[in-house]
Amino acid sequence: MSEDPKQTANAMWGGRFEAGPDAIMQAINASIGFDKRLYAQDIAGSRAHAAMLAATGIVDNSDAEAIRNGLAEILTEIEAGDFPFSVALEDIHMNVEARLKDKIGTPAGRLHTARSRNDQVATDFRLWVRDQCDAAIEGLRALIGALLVQAEAGADWVMPGFTHLQTAQPVTWGHHMMAYVEMLGRDLSRFRDARTRMNECPLGSAALAGTSFPIDRHMTAAALGFDRPTANSLDAVSDRDFALEFLAASAICATHLSRLSEELVIWSSAQFRFVAMSDKWSTGSSIMPQKRNPDAAELIRAKIGRILGATVALFTVMKGLPLAYSKDMQEDKEQVFDAADTLMLALAAMTGMISDLGVNRANLEAAAASGFSTATDLADWLVRAAGLPFRDAHHVTGTLVAQAEAKGCDLPDLTLEDMQAVHPAITAEVFGVLGVQNSVASRQSYGGTAPDQVRAQIARWKEILG
Amino acid sequence: MSEDPKQTANAMWGGRFEAGPDAIMQAINASIGFDKRLYAQDIAGSRAHAAMLAATGIVDNSDAEAIRNGLAEILTEIEAGDFPFSVALEDIHMNVEARLKDKIGTPAGRLHTARSRNDQVATDFRLWVRDQCDAAIEGLRALIGALLVQAEAGADWVMPGFTHLQTAQPVTWGHHMMAYVEMLGRDLSRFRDARTRMNECPLGSAALAGTSFPIDRHMTAAALGFDRPTANSLDAVSDRDFALEFLAASAICATHLSRLSEELVIWSSAQFRFVAMSDKWSTGSSIMPQKRNPDAAELIRAKIGRILGATVALFTVMKGLPLAYSKDMQEDKEQVFDAADTLMLALAAMTGMISDLGVNRANLEAAAASGFSTATDLADWLVRAAGLPFRDAHHVTGTLVAQAEAKGCDLPDLTLEDMQAVHPAITAEVFGVLGVQNSVASRQSYGGTAPDQVRAQIARWKEILG
Amino acid sequence: MSEDPKQTANAMWGGRFEAGPDAIMQAINASIGFDKRLYAQDIAGSRAHAAMLAATGIVDNSDAEAIRNGLAEILTEIEAGDFPFSVALEDIHMNVEARLKDKIGTPAGRLHTARSRNDQVATDFRLWVRDQCDAAIEGLRALIGALLVQAEAGADWVMPGFTHLQTAQPVTWGHHMMAYVEMLGRDLSRFRDARTRMNECPLGSAALAGTSFPIDRHMTAAALGFDRPTANSLDAVSDRDFALEFLAASAICATHLSRLSEELVIWSSAQFRFVAMSDKWSTGSSIMPQKRNPDAAELIRAKIGRILGATVALFTVMKGLPLAYSKDMQEDKEQVFDAADTLMLALAAMTGMISDLGVNRANLEAAAASGFSTATDLADWLVRAAGLPFRDAHHVTGTLVAQAEAKGCDLPDLTLEDMQAVHPAITAEVFGVLGVQNSVASRQSYGGTAPDQVRAQIARWKEILG
Amino acid sequence: MSEDPKQTANAMWGGRFEAGPDAIMQAINASIGFDKRLYAQDIAGSRAHAAMLAATGIVDNSDAEAIRNGLAEILTEIEAGDFPFSVALEDIHMNVEARLKDKIGTPAGRLHTARSRNDQVATDFRLWVRDQCDAAIEGLRALIGALLVQAEAGADWVMPGFTHLQTAQPVTWGHHMMAYVEMLGRDLSRFRDARTRMNECPLGSAALAGTSFPIDRHMTAAALGFDRPTANSLDAVSDRDFALEFLAASAICATHLSRLSEELVIWSSAQFRFVAMSDKWSTGSSIMPQKRNPDAAELIRAKIGRILGATVALFTVMKGLPLAYSKDMQEDKEQVFDAADTLMLALAAMTGMISDLGVNRANLEAAAASGFSTATDLADWLVRAAGLPFRDAHHVTGTLVAQAEAKGCDLPDLTLEDMQAVHPAITAEVFGVLGVQNSVASRQSYGGTAPDQVRAQIARWKEILG
Repeated sequence: MSEDPKQTANAMWGGRFEAGPDAIMQAINASIGFDKRLYAQDIAGSRAHAAMLAATGIVDNSDAEAIRNGLAEILTEIEAGDFPFSVALEDIHMNVEARLKDKIGTPAGRLHTARSRNDQVATDFRLWVRDQCDAAIEGLRALIGALLVQAEAGADWVMPGFTHLQTAQPVTWGHHMMAYVEMLGRDLSRFRDARTRMNECPLGSAALAGTSFPIDRHMTAAALGFDRPTANSLDAVSDRDFALEFLAASAICATHLSRLSEELVIWSSAQFRFVAMSDKWSTGSSIMPQKRNPDAAELIRAKIGRILGATVALFTVMKGLPLAYSKDMQEDKEQVFDAADTLMLALAAMTGMISDLGVNRANLEAAAASGFSTATDLADWLVRAAGLPFRDAHHVTGTLVAQAEAKGCDLPDLTLEDMQAVHPAITAEVFGVLGVQNSVASRQSYGGTAPDQVRAQIARWKEILG
Repeated sequence: MSEDPKQTANAMWGGRFEAGPDAIMQAINASIGFDKRLYAQDIAGSRAHAAMLAATGIVDNSDAEAIRNGLAEILTEIEAGDFPFSVALEDIHMNVEARLKDKIGTPAGRLHTARSRNDQVATDFRLWVRDQCDAAIEGLRALIGALLVQAEAGADWVMPGFTHLQTAQPVTWGHHMMAYVEMLGRDLSRFRDARTRMNECPLGSAALAGTSFPIDRHMTAAALGFDRPTANSLDAVSDRDFALEFLAASAICATHLSRLSEELVIWSSAQFRFVAMSDKWSTGSSIMPQKRNPDAAELIRAKIGRILGATVALFTVMKGLPLAYSKDMQEDKEQVFDAADTLMLALAAMTGMISDLGVNRANLEAAAASGFSTATDLADWLVRAAGLPFRDAHHVTGTLVAQAEAKGCDLPDLTLEDMQAVHPAITAEVFGVLGVQNSVASRQSYGGTAPDQVRAQIARWKEILG
Repeated sequence: MSEDPKQTANAMWGGRFEAGPDAIMQAINASIGFDKRLYAQDIAGSRAHAAMLAATGIVDNSDAEAIRNGLAEILTEIEAGDFPFSVALEDIHMNVEARLKDKIGTPAGRLHTARSRNDQVATDFRLWVRDQCDAAIEGLRALIGALLVQAEAGADWVMPGFTHLQTAQPVTWGHHMMAYVEMLGRDLSRFRDARTRMNECPLGSAALAGTSFPIDRHMTAAALGFDRPTANSLDAVSDRDFALEFLAASAICATHLSRLSEELVIWSSAQFRFVAMSDKWSTGSSIMPQKRNPDAAELIRAKIGRILGATVALFTVMKGLPLAYSKDMQEDKEQVFDAADTLMLALAAMTGMISDLGVNRANLEAAAASGFSTATDLADWLVRAAGLPFRDAHHVTGTLVAQAEAKGCDLPDLTLEDMQAVHPAITAEVFGVLGVQNSVASRQSYGGTAPDQVRAQIARWKEILG
Repeated sequence: MSEDPKQTANAMWGGRFEAGPDAIMQAINASIGFDKRLYAQDIAGSRAHAAMLAATGIVDNSDAEAIRNGLAEILTEIEAGDFPFSVALEDIHMNVEARLKDKIGTPAGRLHTARSRNDQVATDFRLWVRDQCDAAIEGLRALIGALLVQAEAGADWVMPGFTHLQTAQPVTWGHHMMAYVEMLGRDLSRFRDARTRMNECPLGSAALAGTSFPIDRHMTAAALGFDRPTANSLDAVSDRDFALEFLAASAICATHLSRLSEELVIWSSAQFRFVAMSDKWSTGSSIMPQKRNPDAAELIRAKIGRILGATVALFTVMKGLPLAYSKDMQEDKEQVFDAADTLMLALAAMTGMISDLGVNRANLEAAAASGFSTATDLADWLVRAAGLPFRDAHHVTGTLVAQAEAKGCDLPDLTLEDMQAVHPAITAEVFGVLGVQNSVASRQSYGGTAPDQVRAQIARWKEILG
């Protein structure tokens, strides 16, 4: 007997569409399944619009009041889970409007005066994305905070600095953590810039041309927390560049998170053992209790894929669309919803992981001290103390490293005589630069890995974050 | 009063995570929310595995029978909507396994013999993607069928053939429809190739290394409709190239659909009026009843964005992952689910749209006859009948078109004297090639636009589709 | 005889690699083929570094002067095309350094003091991308200028405003042009923000950890026009988010250009004839002289593909890279070079095309007046003058449009009696809102299509651009 | 004095375009800069076309012979580097045609009979991509060969099998190598399928509609090694799905290569030391001679970015293009050229790296033996020999691992008494399954890691490759 589940699956599939064209059109056309998520923004926009219509005398006060109260009730219903969403009503705007009509009758019809679904959805979506900028900023602040705690604890813990995943020079744990603080700090400023740029109100652009009603767009803009109304009604209903910019900023941030995740995965391996994930952020195996799979780090590493995919999706959708609104643009929301959810979750999980991270200081330091990691310090000393040109100092250092390697020891284990045989200008002072603690302490250039420098940057960031 | 919905939204957001690390980890880690869609595949795989364990004597027959019956009950429960899915149990495999234990007790524990979640999920997912190849093939056959009906009806309806959206030469409606049949036919063969390549069974690869139990992988492979077991257990649990190939084939198909959609949108404009969308596939406006927005065509045009995004997402996830299973790979499913759903819906909607499409033959023909669309025919005649080299024939034709343009007429409206003044070798026979009907009829080269050629290709495709 | 060129091609291919591993490694590893483009930045950075080394006493003044003069000579050589680039020297840094040694001998070796190729390339590349931000800003200013000229000329030319490529409401040509001014203005501000964010100097970060030499990073930063040195040396050599941000801003801008291009292609078709491309920006056909293929518009439309591709490429490269420098990052340059060149070329070509664009005002207006484009004006009038709720006004309008359609006329052609039969509150005043000129003039809401509003925005933009 | 190179750069930039519109249009429009790479294909196509024109009597034999000889001379000129390419002649087709006219005069004009640049470029490009499929297949065969050599040498070398980069179960080096053989084998079959699908000849489709000349498309198809002519002339000049399919197959292959590269980078680290790169494929440091940066592996890891970017680029270009040829499609070539070059180079470099790879068998085995990697073997033994249900066996194993961990030993170091205290059914036989050699030897399931199984797969692949 065949266990092939195809028959079942095909039947299901066929079933979905066997109701014919109407069902297919509804499936491809209706957006209520996802845009109901804009309910709070939709109601806020409508309430602001109603207040403005009354203030400008376009509708009378009592109608506006009925509308505003009706909308407040609807908000309560939705948040209580009592709202009867209807797919036949296609989208969140029509669902709310129909419900308002049920509640207050004729005055509901006046809400749509001097407005269209085109400017309404543009406003709703912009409010939503603006909120996500704020959420990203909050999430980034929390993660930066967690990194600062790690950095402060380990401002002078020595670890290997890698290039090409090969030991290069010693750095400090704090310095490494602060590298991510800088990256995430730029991410934060990107969301801030994006928020500022998008903070213009499309409401009142109507279908695409503006309206002949004497509306006050500055009033609705202010009520919704926008800096000003948009300056061109065609642009306002046609562009989604604010969403693209949010996606791009999210993708850059997710790239940073993927790099930190990769490091956590590698550092958690039996071969590195630099860090130990807490139980909360890893999964075990009932059979291998020592195993601690860094699931959360792996999942965060993967999330850049999802966010980059969403970014590519919206770019592709918007490519080559003539003005003004085209239905293609209905594809904007799900991509942004998914990317925003993904980013916020990744930030929260990374914050938790970093907060709970166990760092094996002894392993870090042992790894830092091996592999001739202070060869550059030796070369620099030859330049500084013995006056060699840098390229010559490199050559001398190379010879000494080769000797140490041949002897099976590290640089500090060579004798002064060994060294002087290679270059007579070397003195005992050189041993001062060959220890990893001295090495990191010496890198006092601005932004360098010296613990003092690291602490100065930690202090600067604490002040920035307030 | 501010209508800014941010407070609400932020509170919600914060609320989602305020339960702390456990909630965040569960949110990022659990897959049951989406992988429950694999239930039929999961149960089929487990039933096949149990049968094989009995056949090879690894478990006894009564235990295997209990397992198979229990699984059949669970399938019924899920399809009836009675199954108690649990997020705490993380994924579909654990949910089914736990339920099986509830039902049959100890023997349930034997099902996991010689198997791991790694080969289990690889098998489930491959079965699902294989089904989607079949669904895509079915969807493509239906759409090709609809195009063939259009092509047959209009095998000799003349329309302008465009390059650069400028009139170039007359073609037939049937020929244009058949261009898409060719494209979609290649899409169909791509899904067929993908299906053949992926049709190997990972079950029995266990965690990554195979197993020491004397299992019979050929038996489970056959029971599940696979051509053979996979030949390397590490590869079997680590790769997702079958999903990437499915996504790429879907993206190519969606590109084809986006091109046909673009044409439908342009052809529906007031300026073109080549086609009229049926009510089923367009939306109107309560205020402008003549308006028929080609929503379905626009939405299908947009879907390439979504599918390309999913493709990029999975490529990015898989980039640089070491063997064998990494948790990153959990991101494979949602992308493929969404892309497959999107493609099937787009195919179904396009099939409906094409079936219901009204074609304005008169407008097509009028547009074909304007714009000197038979200038090439004139040039070809000069080569063929008057022996001019092609480049010279082009020059003569250019002069004649310029004369016609100056006179405000089209080429067939010039007199023979007009023509002979430009080149004495022109005879009255030339008028035979200047009509659009003659033009298309003359293009008898294999695959050309002549109605005979078009009908020959329609016949060939009917035979292919059976 | 076979004409299959495969043998030739394969032989060539094989030939490329038959020299063995050395040739393959050089082909994949050397970057001089593309990074020589950074020569000016590389030399500027080295000159600033040398001046600082002298100012801080790390090298003596005469050596620094020799270095600076040698570098100036090298710059002259390169710009004159006299520089002997060597692939064996791998990259621009080694090429310049080796040449400097040829020229000035030993002191050349001191230039590399307190510096590494890692901070050197990070500085060079950042300088280059910063220049491209400036170039993009200049290009955008030019294109906005060209659009303003079009907008001013046609501030009151009426044309159809489309949604779904269906006539919706009349707008003005100036309004449509200004929509793109708004989009491109945001693009401009995005490049400005990106420039500000990236304007920190990596020089002095050395290999990854900073340096023990008493360098003055603020001095080199200032000399190179940076706002400050970077604050973390690991971050400075490891991140390329400034390049990602540049690519993302370019991709958004290219999306805007693709939309305008699509409109130009459609508007140039025989069916629309809204615009005529100048000869400079289109190509003809020797055989169909009336044909004017909008090649430039099509090519610009395509460029978003190229820039989005480059964006995806760099995101994918950076995904999951551990700190600090990995060789993967060598892939950053070609993508950014190509995207920047593409964007600048597209901006220049679009500026030329818009400047030379012929607009067929009569066709625009005729198209605007057909298709019941003032139906919304009628509905709005019913609300405003007759006090109907908006949804009721819609219904009345729909009935009137249906009547006009049945009569084969447009709305202004209905008699007052016809109208009053549908709703008695209609008066002769209604005819004032049914003309397209009146329609656009009435849309006086902020940012609306009324010529006054359009002119106000033109004035605002002229002031912004200075 | 400022070292800011901006002035220089801006002047250069401005300079590029200061020649005005003509220069900009030429820069964006001309393709000869890249499509000259199609010269061999272009000449082969033209020679086949000329032979067919003579055979069908459309041109006379002497003219055709003159054309064919002239083209042969041109091929020689180009390959000798003597051909005077002209940007003013825009593309390779016009360059060759103009040169032919120089050489043979009037008959050159007859070559373009019954042909257009549209079918000509479609043919040239398809021939080129077809060659690249062959090149990819050759490159894959070579790499698979190198992996087979590694697999054969280490068919029984034990190493840790990882999941989540955590030790999971022992596998063999040969098994791990063979996992990539399977992946690359599927890649090879993808290129083969793509080649078969694209192997239809567009020549004779003319501009878009076919031709009225009595051409023989089957003859040209055969002469160029195609299986048949394309069946629809519109499709033949409009679609580029063969290029998309080639790009997608290349991206999947590059994903596989990125995974192997990542492993090589990690395995080369000081912490792993599983492998040592040869000097040819790594770079050193003059100062740290022990350092061996895995540059080639890092660069190959990055190449998926480049190829995925090219793939996204062409998808985005093709999205929503109406039939037939649009100038946008000129963007197809550079993306495919770059992706193909990148893939071939990556395959060649990986082949070299694998061939020269030093494997540290002792380190592999030591790593495999630590970390309780045979815990699953213990559990399986409990099921098999002691009859425990799998889940119970897991529990017992977990307890024993915890004991070993507490004692600081590994599983084989526990005494029989220790074990029997946990479960009395354990006998001395259990020690037979706890060694890593026994572990891998026991995994005899089809496709498992047992050396016998691995060798059987090696033999199968040797036979496949012939």
